[in-house]
This record gives sequence, structure tokens and C-alpha cells, in this order.
Amino acid sequence: MEDTTAPSVTKPIRCIVKLGGAAITCKNELEKINEETVDIVSSQLREAMVTGSSSRKVLGMDWSTRPGKPGISCDADDFEDRNLDSSSFIVVHGAGSFGHFQASKSAVHKGGLNKPLVKAGFVATRISVTTLNLEIVRALAREGIPSIGLSPFSCGWTTSERNMASADLSMVARAINSGFIPVLHGDAVLDDLQGCTILSGDVIIRHLAAYLKPEYVVFLTDSSLREIAVREDGSWSVVKPTLADTNTQVEITVAAHDTTGGMVTKISEAALIAKLGIDVYIVKAATTHSSRALSGEVRGAIPEDWLGTVIRFGGKGNGFPTSDTQLLQSIEFYKSSSTSLKEFN
Amino acid sequence: MEDTTAPSVTKPIRCIVKLGGAAITCKNELEKINEETVDIVSSQLREAMVTGSSSRKVLGMDWSTRPGKPGISCDADDFEDRNLDSSSFIVVHGAGSFGHFQASKSAVHKGGLNKPLVKAGFVATRISVTTLNLEIVRALAREGIPSIGLSPFSCGWTTSERNMASADLSMVARAINSGFIPVLHGDAVLDDLQGCTILSGDVIIRHLAAYLKPEYVVFLTDSSLREIAVREDGSWSVVKPTLADTNTQVEITVAAHDTTGGMVTKISEAALIAKLGIDVYIVKAATTHSSRALSGEVRGAIPEDWLGTVIRFGGKGNGFPTSDTQLLQSIEFYKSSSTSLKEFN
Repeated sequence: MEDTTAPSVTKPIRCIVKLGGAAITCKNELEKINEETVDIVSSQLREAMVTGSSSRKVLGMDWSTRPGKPGISCDADDFEDRNLDSSSFIVVHGAGSFGHFQASKSAVHKGGLNKPLVKAGFVATRISVTTLNLEIVRALAREGIPSIGLSPFSCGWTTSERNMASADLSMVARAINSGFIPVLHGDAVLDDLQGCTILSGDVIIRHLAAYLKPEYVVFLTDSSLREIAVREDGSWSVVKPTLADTNTQVEITVAAHDTTGGMVTKISEAALIAKLGIDVYIVKAATTHSSRALSGEVRGAIPEDWLGTVIRFGGKGNGFPTSDTQLLQSIEFYKSSSTSLKEFN
Repeated sequence: MEDTTAPSVTKPIRCIVKLGGAAITCKNELEKINEETVDIVSSQLREAMVTGSSSRKVLGMDWSTRPGKPGISCDADDFEDRNLDSSSFIVVHGAGSFGHFQASKSAVHKGGLNKPLVKAGFVATRISVTTLNLEIVRALAREGIPSIGLSPFSCGWTTSERNMASADLSMVARAINSGFIPVLHGDAVLDDLQGCTILSGDVIIRHLAAYLKPEYVVFLTDSSLREIAVREDGSWSVVKPTLADTNTQVEITVAAHDTTGGMVTKISEAALIAKLGIDVYIVKAATTHSSRALSGEVRGAIPEDWLGTVIRFGGKGNGFPTSDTQLLQSIEFYKSSSTSLKEFN
């Protein structure tokens, strides 16, 4: 039984963005951020959300020291005549090479906080994922995005047998109403029945979408998923890479507790969002295509030269689909090279 | 009007500890942690809260990489037969040389989020103080303390004209009930009337003490405050250092918005806690005296050889004091060298 109060948001949410864990971290290196991708993504987000930002000097909001980086520069006068109003975005990121080692070593997703190893692993997992969250918040702030880190655990989000039990959206709403960009993340959370578990970024996205009704949702991914087969009866399967491959490549916090594989969860979550009537774009991070998706340019008619996947409720005038199968039939794949093999980006 | 629900805590809280910002950071160096003090304090906290911890190998709970430090070592087998039960502590830390530069440059404490500089400063301040929080959580976790960072902002704490407006203690309570040690901090928060402000660690402590009723409260400080004069009418003043000095030495987040000086606020807050019937110990961090205060050894009769200050409701059998002046008369100073000049530690 889910206990979530719909918050009062005074500004409509334009977009919820998922930064895939595999895209923003170096997947084969423990706790290493993919700085190049994160910097480009941050810059694209600024251009998409801050009005007229591209033509003027970026006013960084991370005034903290960074080891091995130039000192802090912040001139109060620069801010005097600037309009920092941004449209309302929410950022959610995955864990990638942060949190995975800690969570899997201790099996946090299975619960059992009375076991010393699980309790220690819970602490270690939160340290790792909040470290990544802080780095993402800082990267966005350096681009002049008024980002505010919000840990689901701290916000009071809990699960019950791994399903969302309560998710207080009031701080997300208050942050947005005050003109900030909330930055949430996959997290270790308390579970009413099994003690604790892992709450994935994709589940968070769906929850936020259901209650905050953004205009569109963008999943920024690495390029690991290339091909999906959609059969005539509307069912689908990942053709390449195989699920065994994707387990090591995508969204580790999902893969760690989802025996059906991370990407399957991602597609299912995206499908459930589309079911709400909200367009979902899945696109490779840090490309011209991701920039166009973030800006909302691909809403409506999809440009011919855009590479990515749209999951959209099919406009057949029949109302909402009544089953997931029916919904998945309405997934529009672009740049497909055959009728059965489709590209994600 | 304050809106706080008293949470349901299944374990009684033994102690709330304040780690003073000036004690845990290097005050003259921007965003530098006093690692030696933090390590000793963490070790003393472990000994005070984890049963029988001193005789066995410390099982670290920070499994994340650290630049320039040895790699992660974590042997799952080590946790097998260990009892990690700890008595319930809550840790709150100040900001010291984190957050001060950012908050003062933008005057976050005065509010006005519609001003671009204040908005940017709010973001920058939160980045700085959450960076410190993460480092403190990690230091405690390395000592085997199951610490969980909880940002007041994320927990939904807000103010109204700088006074506490709402403070949801439910996540603090849930973390404690699950056997974790919550670690809170002075933070930039939203304010109902002026948009935003700074919520100091000392105000947080008083609030937690009022609702969670710990057995005792310990303020770990640096040694900046040496002498207080208590006059015959019960009024008091800081003799050395002067308030001008203390402004640069103590609890910067307080000093930044409190024109009466940080240490005056600290004493007033401590006095308000004592008024609740809860002993407050103010003691220099990382000394044998702080270790004894944390363990609860100085409760009841104060040992002759203990150096520190107790703020305790005087046991005159007259019930609670009716005024702050009356309360302050009951402050017990130890190791005083004269009737008017008293030592804090």
C-alpha cells in the first residue's frame, strides 16, 4: 500500500531526466565518474533549461575547492543583472560504478539489517551513492544550474517488500517552487518488511512522473543497448547485447536486485510512464541527439535526422492501452534497419 | 508556529553530540578538515557507543575509494559473528571552514532567493556543507559506526523568519530504530517568509533534544572559549576571548547570522537544553575529557579530575528554573581559578 501525498507544485514540471549510471560513470573502474560525459550533459541541460544561457558567461554555483583543480572564482557583481530563472527540470541519476560493489558484497537488496554485514553494507552503499550525487550536483552547479541534492533516504522514501511504500514529494516540490533543480539518485532505503533494499533510479523516475506529470521524460544512456526485436504479437526481446551482457553494462543498482535484467526493468518503467500519456525519449548521452531530446525539440513529429527511441502512447484515438503488450506495440522505433531489429540510439 | 510531530523512537536516545565546526575543521584554511581531531573523535564515539568495541578489530563501513589512501579492504567473513549493536547516539556537526565563504559572500542567512547571487550562494553553501557531512559520515563509518548522513534540507526542515517552522523527525527516528547513527549538520534551508536562511547546528541540537529527550548532550569544541564571568545577579559575559575574537573562531554558521556572536548563541542553546532537565557537557574535542563526557562517566557527581563545563539544572529541589537568569545561575563551572573567571575546558 503506497502512501504518497501529491505535492503542490506551483511551476509545471517540464522534464524529468534520468542520467543512466552506465553513461555517467566509467563502468569498469570502481567509483570513477565519466567526467567528459557529465560535463557535456551538464552543459546540454543548462542550454535546455536556462533561458538565453548560451550567449552569456556561465555563472558557476559550485564555489567549493576541488583537488587538483583551479581555485574558486566567484564574482558577486556578475550575478547582479542576471536572470537565472530556469524551467522546471528534475534530475535523477543511477549508480553505475558507485554503490554496486558495496551493495552486492553485502546483498543490501535482500534486506536483513540485523545481519552485521548487511548493516555495514547499507552504510557503505549510501556513502558511495551520495558521493556520486554530490559530484553530479557539483557538475551541474558549475554549469550554473541551481541544483540541490536530495537523497531518497533522507527525504523519507521507504519501500515495503521492495515496492514503493512511502515517498514524500514535499521537498522535491518545495525545491522546485523555490526555483531549484532537485537531483535525486538510486539509493539504499529502509523497507517495512525486509528491513532495507535498493531503490533504483528508474523506479524513482516513474514515481516522480506519476505524481508530478512532467511534459516529457528523457533517459540518457550509454550505447550498450543496440537492438530490440518486436514481434508481431507486440511482445519484444533484447537481441543484442544479450541479457547476460547487459547485466554488467547497465544500471547496476537495478541489475543487482532484478533477476530479469536491468534493461528489461528500464523498458518496463519507461512503458509505464508512457502509459500515463507522457512521452519518453531514450537517447545516447552527450550527443546532439540528447541535446535535442532535452530541449523538447523532438516532441510532436520526430525529426528525420534524430537518433533515439520514443516510447509514446500510440495516437490511434482509442484511448489508453489496456495492457502492457498493447502499449509496447505503440513504441516508435527510429532508424530501424529491419522490421524486427531496432536501434535504441 | 512550529510544526513538528514527535516521532516514535523505539530505542531511547542516550546522547546527542555536537561536533563543533571549529573543532573538526582547520579554521584558517578554506574547506579543510582537521583529520587528526576527526579521527580521534570518531574513535572515542565508537568506544562510547559500540558495546565491547575496544577489544576487537574495527570493522570499517566506508568501502569507498579515497584519493591518496590505501584501497578498500572489506572481508565479509569478519562480520559473521559480530554484534554491531550500538546505543543510540545522534551526531550533529557545525560547518567551520565549510560553507562560511559561500554563505557570507551571498548573505544566504538574510534570504531573498529571487536575487541571483543568493540563489547561487544557497546552492554553493549546500554543496560545501554536504561535502563536510559526507566526510564526517565516512570518518565515523571507518571506525565501524553505522552512520547515516541526513541533511536537514532533504529531511524537509524549514524555518519561518529564521525560527524553526517544521522539522520532520521521522527519518531521524526511523534511522535510529533501524540501528543507525544519524549525522545531521548546519544547513542552508528554505524559509517560509524570507525565502531561505542558515539553520545552525546548535539550533538543530536543541530541537532534537526537546523532542527526542536524550539522557545527555555533549558539545565538543575547540579551546577558543576560555573564560566566562558570572556576576552575582546571575548574568554572565564572555571575558576572554572577546566577542570580536569569537566571531572568527566559533561556529561560523551561527556567527554569520547572529549579531550577538556565535558563542553567546551556543551558551543560550545549551541553557535551553539544560532547562529541559538534560545535562549538557561542553568539553574540548579529542581529549581524555571528551572521551569521559561521551561515555557518560561524568553524569551524576562530576569527577575531580575532569576538565569541562556542565550546564545542569540546579538541584535545589525547587523545580525548574523560571527564567534564563535563574537557569544560568545553576551552570556549574569546574576548574575555575577565581570566582569570576571560569574555564570552559
